[in-house]
Amino acid sequence: MSGDHRSARISVDAAFAWLDGAVYPLGQEDVPLRQAARRVLAEDIRAQRPIPACDSASVDGFAVAAHETLSASSYNPLSLPLIEVAPGDALCGETNAVLPLDQGELDGSGRVVVVEALAPGQNVDQQGTVVAAGGLLLPAGALLGPQQIGICAAAGVSDLPVVRRPRVRILVAKRTHPGAADSNGPMVCSLVERDGGAVSQHAVVDRGGSALARALAAGDADIVLVIGGTGPGRDDNAASGLAAAGELAIHGVAVRPGETTGLGRTAAGMPVVLLPGSPPACLWSYEFFAARVVRRLGGRDPGLPYISRVMTTARKIISSIGMTEICPVRCQPDGTVEPVVSFSEIGLMAAVSADGFVIVPETSEGHPPGASVNVRLYKHR
Amino acid sequence: MSGDHRSARISVDAAFAWLDGAVYPLGQEDVPLRQAARRVLAEDIRAQRPIPACDSASVDGFAVAAHETLSASSYNPLSLPLIEVAPGDALCGETNAVLPLDQGELDGSGRVVVVEALAPGQNVDQQGTVVAAGGLLLPAGALLGPQQIGICAAAGVSDLPVVRRPRVRILVAKRTHPGAADSNGPMVCSLVERDGGAVSQHAVVDRGGSALARALAAGDADIVLVIGGTGPGRDDNAASGLAAAGELAIHGVAVRPGETTGLGRTAAGMPVVLLPGSPPACLWSYEFFAARVVRRLGGRDPGLPYISRVMTTARKIISSIGMTEICPVRCQPDGTVEPVVSFSEIGLMAAVSADGFVIVPETSEGHPPGASVNVRLYKHR
Repeated sequence: MSGDHRSARISVDAAFAWLDGAVYPLGQEDVPLRQAARRVLAEDIRAQRPIPACDSASVDGFAVAAHETLSASSYNPLSLPLIEVAPGDALCGETNAVLPLDQGELDGSGRVVVVEALAPGQNVDQQGTVVAAGGLLLPAGALLGPQQIGICAAAGVSDLPVVRRPRVRILVAKRTHPGAADSNGPMVCSLVERDGGAVSQHAVVDRGGSALARALAAGDADIVLVIGGTGPGRDDNAASGLAAAGELAIHGVAVRPGETTGLGRTAAGMPVVLLPGSPPACLWSYEFFAARVVRRLGGRDPGLPYISRVMTTARKIISSIGMTEICPVRCQPDGTVEPVVSFSEIGLMAAVSADGFVIVPETSEGHPPGASVNVRLYKHR
Repeated sequence: MSGDHRSARISVDAAFAWLDGAVYPLGQEDVPLRQAARRVLAEDIRAQRPIPACDSASVDGFAVAAHETLSASSYNPLSLPLIEVAPGDALCGETNAVLPLDQGELDGSGRVVVVEALAPGQNVDQQGTVVAAGGLLLPAGALLGPQQIGICAAAGVSDLPVVRRPRVRILVAKRTHPGAADSNGPMVCSLVERDGGAVSQHAVVDRGGSALARALAAGDADIVLVIGGTGPGRDDNAASGLAAAGELAIHGVAVRPGETTGLGRTAAGMPVVLLPGSPPACLWSYEFFAARVVRRLGGRDPGLPYISRVMTTARKIISSIGMTEICPVRCQPDGTVEPVVSFSEIGLMAAVSADGFVIVPETSEGHPPGASVNVRLYKHR
């Protein structure tokens, strides 16, 4: 069976199309502002009151009624009532302008002396200038970074409706030979957390097909990742296990590393991604397919979370026609990029020693020296 | 006093120089691999054994001794002992090559038939190819991302020596007028966490100078941030409080927003950053100065954690000579950038509605239309 699947590898785009049709954002929950960082807004947030709530001082100084300063000059200093204000203080009564602290002098009798006319609104933040009551503060789908948290705090919003965090089960299909470590589990856990998911289970399961099928059927989550057992070996039962537990929609994708990836769902409809056990293939199968599911479930942009930059190749980048290939590259001091030793030669060390990578699509044999390529960067600086 | 400081604002670079001389990376601690994501390595990590630990199959198939396949061809099929292997399995005995699963046929008697010669090492990952015993896996200072976690897991490393997380005290100088919310605290907490710090205390303290001095002297941490009370008002005692509790090294920096920033240390030598209470000034004072301290303490790159990209201005960007200014900008569909309404007009909403920002240095009046500017991006995609 596996052999058939290998020869019938489908394209990355077809795999994306299947995933995108199978996975939708989760529902929402309310979280306190203090815990909302890096979450995704589930609804528009509107200002319940205008910001500023009323006309307020924008500087430290003295609140005045502008019309009372009209005739002020150094030849005609005017003495006005002393109303000291700090930034953010509401202006009261008839006051509508603020004389900055260092431009007003106190006379001996508790009044302030003005030697220049002020315009109405001078050094004043007008009510509703930042946003009117009912105005949009943040749109649904916004990722909550520090300034988004800050604007909500300033608006007096204390709880935010956010998309629920995807709960991710990670099942590691145990290798038969003794002493085999779970070298992928910690990596996949940190990838899940990067993408806003929460690891609800990280367990080693028996590699047999029926054991895997039972493990897939048990337990509640929003997505299940199975690591290992995706290949053509006699000991590789991830695909048959998934087929027995629900639907194996895709097994074998034309992407390298990661070609033995499988996609499907449990009988209960939970999406399942089968990740190869070889570490670089596990990494890239996660990056392309599992990350897309986790991010879509969590309401995030489903694409790869890397900055891209157009750069020039210093050396040839080679790839196979018919296969989307991930080529790790290093940025040179002259601003060009060149390939580093490949994943097939040094495994994960290729990703560790690279500055980024180039994705060469199925239709391309690679790039000659001097070509413009889109480099996704691991390191930003 | 405050007035004097305002007129004697020092440059951003001079403030950086003071900070960089006052702050060094913290010591180290060991953490389990599973909790090491986003931490910074404190020491080089070397492989305790070679990777792969021994010559291993790189594909599913049949292990063979290459010299026994020398005369194999479709006219001379050879029948060899059946040794099935999966990727990662150690090769045993005299075997030194792997015939892929789909190229070998089983004969009836439990042997495998070979019709082509294999070279020694074919489909084999040689011992130590990824890294030799004692070889460098990851250098001190590396930020631990998913692939760094993965390579450590693959190497059997279970605990990692990382730089201790900076413990950050956040003291909010309470506004005197009733009902004033702590609009900056949640934002600053999320900034601290972004930079790898841990908020050890987030408290509202009395705004009086002696109360602030007492609060600064109490409590243990690696850095203290005081929010509010940095301005020239009568009610602004952050600077005098810090002077009383230790050293006020700098008060007033030529940066907008953020010009009333203060820097210093407690009598015990703990660095202190005084952040203005106006939200955009608080944000930018944090970004320039507090973030630099938190990141340096934690062994991270001290610079602003934003991607930069050279883009062309669609409209003029105006700035004051003598003042480093942060100009929020929006990226246009044609790839140019233009300024959005400024921080002084709409406060934090400027940061929320911008795609990024341009830092205009003290020596510049800004940029004409059509100029190349370095844009730091909030949004990467």
